[in-house]
Amino acid sequence: MTNQTITAAIIVIGNEILSGRTQDQNVQYIALRLGEAGIILNEVRVVPDLYRSIIKTVKELSVSHDYVFTTGGIGPTHDDITTSAIAQAFNTELELNTTALNVMLEFAYKMHKTEVSETNKKMAYIPKGTTLIDNPISGAPGFIIHNVYVLPGIPDIMQAMFNNILPRLKHGPRIKSLTIELNIGESIVADLLEATQNEYPTVSIGSYPFIKEQKYATSVVLTSPDHSALDLAHKKLQKLLESHI
Amino acid sequence: MTNQTITAAIIVIGNEILSGRTQDQNVQYIALRLGEAGIILNEVRVVPDLYRSIIKTVKELSVSHDYVFTTGGIGPTHDDITTSAIAQAFNTELELNTTALNVMLEFAYKMHKTEVSETNKKMAYIPKGTTLIDNPISGAPGFIIHNVYVLPGIPDIMQAMFNNILPRLKHGPRIKSLTIELNIGESIVADLLEATQNEYPTVSIGSYPFIKEQKYATSVVLTSPDHSALDLAHKKLQKLLESHI
Repeated sequence: MTNQTITAAIIVIGNEILSGRTQDQNVQYIALRLGEAGIILNEVRVVPDLYRSIIKTVKELSVSHDYVFTTGGIGPTHDDITTSAIAQAFNTELELNTTALNVMLEFAYKMHKTEVSETNKKMAYIPKGTTLIDNPISGAPGFIIHNVYVLPGIPDIMQAMFNNILPRLKHGPRIKSLTIELNIGESIVADLLEATQNEYPTVSIGSYPFIKEQKYATSVVLTSPDHSALDLAHKKLQKLLESHI
Repeated sequence: MTNQTITAAIIVIGNEILSGRTQDQNVQYIALRLGEAGIILNEVRVVPDLYRSIIKTVKELSVSHDYVFTTGGIGPTHDDITTSAIAQAFNTELELNTTALNVMLEFAYKMHKTEVSETNKKMAYIPKGTTLIDNPISGAPGFIIHNVYVLPGIPDIMQAMFNNILPRLKHGPRIKSLTIELNIGESIVADLLEATQNEYPTVSIGSYPFIKEQKYATSVVLTSPDHSALDLAHKKLQKLLESHI
């Protein structure tokens, strides 16, 4: 286990999530990949397509986390303001990024035998001094500014682009988890869970009740980047459970 | 349209969402119901089961929104710290709420012919001076402290409890939305959307690209609590679209 925890936050930018029209599908995907990479996802915020909300949230989270990932709002229409808002958050300006434009030209020609429309060219205007994130699906890239990784909202494209950047991030020990399923309600084992939690503070023990065949059941999930502590806590808890229930 | 916008935020409390183990199902449900009630959902935050995160987030959002809804962390196990953290956020203490305990006793007897276990009694300790939220499914209530509505994470129970409180909230004009589906990419209509948006500032116009039968398609969603402006913007945009594409 490293001493230095690597942390991340996600900012979901989109009125369509806040209105309930769309179920977000990106947080869970990113969360699972980050866990594998040993990066702790500490917070998620969903904010509307408003300059002041995006700017405030990006500023706050970029100082308090190692990595910030944003999804949504980088398309070509009037409601896509993420790129411009993030430029403002970092007091920089948009400029025509010729690398981005060339990639978009290639894609437009390869896929549709067309030029890039004036409207779509908006997507090649990117804050100065940023690194592009390749988009293998539709061409228009994302970008990295300071510790903020700017990704689109469409899940397929977001995933492909996220997988492009993940290997470049600092990794920690994988956040491993072990699950024990019990056919009883969580209150019956609460004391055993708490005792185990107190004995193994580097392991996070969560208790998740659910109904199975009309009876109470519980998933106990032990999670930690410290794999040896995790195994010890898991063995100890299993022993306690066997002798008490 | 009222002059006074009624705003809300949701705080999802749960390591299981941040780890990616569980897909949140509560935000979309609450978001849709709030829209019907004319309450603007301005922000969602997902935070871990940690005192400092919950306290900080509750304090911040309760001053900046009319209503805050929290989900998760009010069960009987050691990792359920929401109630205690929220008491701390408002500088108050937990006390045994006899009304809550009596409801739990009734449920325990009716459903399982048992007493309430010592462990489950934890759920009857609730901040002083709060209003309870009825739980018609499993008994243990939520509560309202200042403008914060504390709900469980299990979707069925959360929904039933949310529906108990919704009629008691201030309502605004329903946030109505109209959708236009187009079998073309959004960049082709970007100028028309922007012109309409500029003409009708009280209507929010969102453009959501998707792929349909391997071709670009777009959902244009017009949303507003101002129904007459919404209808005018919708008609104007349809006319523009008919004459241009």
